Amino acid sequence: MSSLRADLEAAARIGADEHGGISRFAWTSELAQANAWLMERLAELGVEVELDPAGNVLGRWESGEGTAVLIGSHLDTVPSGGRYDGALGVVAAVDVVRRLKAEGVEPRRPVWVVSFNDEEGARFQTGMLGSRAFCGECDLADWRGRGVPEAMVEAGRDFAALPRAGRVQEVGAFLELHIEQGPVLERLGVDLGVVTAITGILGFRARFLGEANHAGTTPMEHRRDALVGAARAVLALRDAARARDDMTANVGVIAAEPGGFNVVPGAAEFTIDVRSPSPRRFGELEPFVRETLTAIADEEGLGLELAETHRKSPVELDAGLQDVLEEAAREEGATTLRMPSGAGHDAMVLAHHVPAAMLFVPSRGGVSHSPDEHTAADHCELGASVLARAVRRLVT
Amino acid sequence: MSSLRADLEAAARIGADEHGGISRFAWTSELAQANAWLMERLAELGVEVELDPAGNVLGRWESGEGTAVLIGSHLDTVPSGGRYDGALGVVAAVDVVRRLKAEGVEPRRPVWVVSFNDEEGARFQTGMLGSRAFCGECDLADWRGRGVPEAMVEAGRDFAALPRAGRVQEVGAFLELHIEQGPVLERLGVDLGVVTAITGILGFRARFLGEANHAGTTPMEHRRDALVGAARAVLALRDAARARDDMTANVGVIAAEPGGFNVVPGAAEFTIDVRSPSPRRFGELEPFVRETLTAIADEEGLGLELAETHRKSPVELDAGLQDVLEEAAREEGATTLRMPSGAGHDAMVLAHHVPAAMLFVPSRGGVSHSPDEHTAADHCELGASVLARAVRRLVT
Repeated sequence: MSSLRADLEAAARIGADEHGGISRFAWTSELAQANAWLMERLAELGVEVELDPAGNVLGRWESGEGTAVLIGSHLDTVPSGGRYDGALGVVAAVDVVRRLKAEGVEPRRPVWVVSFNDEEGARFQTGMLGSRAFCGECDLADWRGRGVPEAMVEAGRDFAALPRAGRVQEVGAFLELHIEQGPVLERLGVDLGVVTAITGILGFRARFLGEANHAGTTPMEHRRDALVGAARAVLALRDAARARDDMTANVGVIAAEPGGFNVVPGAAEFTIDVRSPSPRRFGELEPFVRETLTAIADEEGLGLELAETHRKSPVELDAGLQDVLEEAAREEGATTLRMPSGAGHDAMVLAHHVPAAMLFVPSRGGVSHSPDEHTAADHCELGASVLARAVRRLVT
Repeated sequence: MSSLRADLEAAARIGADEHGGISRFAWTSELAQANAWLMERLAELGVEVELDPAGNVLGRWESGEGTAVLIGSHLDTVPSGGRYDGALGVVAAVDVVRRLKAEGVEPRRPVWVVSFNDEEGARFQTGMLGSRAFCGECDLADWRGRGVPEAMVEAGRDFAALPRAGRVQEVGAFLELHIEQGPVLERLGVDLGVVTAITGILGFRARFLGEANHAGTTPMEHRRDALVGAARAVLALRDAARARDDMTANVGVIAAEPGGFNVVPGAAEFTIDVRSPSPRRFGELEPFVRETLTAIADEEGLGLELAETHRKSPVELDAGLQDVLEEAAREEGATTLRMPSGAGHDAMVLAHHVPAAMLFVPSRGGVSHSPDEHTAADHCELGASVLARAVRRLVT
């Protein structure tokens, strides 16, 4: 068994839950145990190891001079998550240092391994807390309101020290290996994805207002059925996203009121999630959603309430680093696809501060955030090899 | 103030609740009080009064020979209902006897006034229990499972005696005055509706099955979105009903699963209520719904579960009695519209056993089952006058 494989299996035993998945959340004993395990692996490699004030594990191979090449991902999980999401990028980063050391490489600049804390944000609905703190984006007021200080105190940590985790200025490049969490690579039979951009996400809560009426005695032409408006919105959003290759749309939550089988819905409330990795397209999404729903409301004689609930702008990844990854993949004999990421990652935080890039390996069936998450062993090894080759290129 | 008006107002005070509505349910003290009030009014008119084994109030003006002309409606209500639904038909029936007696009419056949128990079925989800028992349709096993025996014991009544309420064989015709509970008469400016048929109602619980997926990483063309199927069904049913003048359709309840804003719905469950007063159209509804949803499931790559939840066949009302009501209305100078009823009524139970007909008065804004339910005083008087004229025609 390869060292990478052994490390993946060892990590998967930490926080294994009763559902066959893995549950490791920020400032819990499960994540602390995984961090301790990682720090032992890093210490074995002779690098400087620390748990920073934000709960990020850093393994600093201080060598040469200048800014570091940072590699890694995260060890926290969603509830009952899989063994690859985050963990693969961390153990691959360890493997890169192991390989370079075995090859006798003497980097001309530092190579740092990182496991960012709380990428998933499952415990406090925070998300990327560790990478944000590392990048100096300390949203203390928001985090305080979500129970983070209490959890840190319980774990023997100091909330007020979070800003001291900021040291992105010592980094010159960030590379993250991650599972795709989608079906594209598998379906196309491509080995690796070189990520071009991380999608922007725009969320709304929409509510059509009609008139609740008796479903038997109200003639069809006199109804103002709010659910008809919502149904038209579901289809209009789906059709628009299908017609564009740089947009997705989803309605994942819906309810009709008052909610009687024999009552015409007087109100219908639903969520909207629209995404695009293209800054131009992303800029069009808000007016598109608003105009589409307004037109439906007008045509159906409905009122409309539309509230934006969240917005994350798309982030384009570094073109030079994409070339480095693609060239490394070519040298390893791997096929690649340039593709956007439809999910968020720590790299989208880092990319605002330093050149950043991501490498995807295929997810079987596109499944993730599930115990069924799986990536073939060969693809894990290939991803780590390409990452090692890219890092060697950047530091020699 | 007319006697009719005074009776309506007196009845509205019984069971008045804290929401400004009226709540009178089967075998409660509120309905018992209303029944007692009604029996006093009937006794004042010198007819034979009884509370039958099913809780129906009967006022029998025994005169002449042969089968009785039965007139009336119900005094039970929905929770926080209005003052006209049911009660108008009961007090109008009392008023008919009062008028005929005042005019010195000596009927050649009996005239019976009835207030059927538990038409709304609000307390036990029974519905038309009183008229069913009166017609010998005693569904004892079903009623037992809903708590009816316990409620009857508590009210000092005998559940096992329910079948003894059956005496429809003594009735030769049934006439029911009722509010429309819809907007048609008001919108057309017509005084009265002569009901041609009572709609058939077919209910389903439908469930489309797709695949839950990440709303960001799953390309649009690879999604099997169950809510898209439900949205198409909502619109297909609405469009079909709009295109036919003898059909209504409603989706009043809907939910997507797992119900995350960023998760493509793997399942979508919703109710379907389709109605038609036409026996031919009604017969087409089940295959229409099944074929429409099956086609959507096929086109969207979804599974489909479709379960019928309830079915009430349409009932055509007696053509001869419709003519009597229309002629009586003409003689009173009232305009009329032949129209189906989109809601169920005791008359649909009676119509399976004896010639039955219904007369509608306009509902302001089409509103009912609400404290805002209203019918103009002139329309109430007109309805009672036409009913009296029709009864006189049938008994002299």
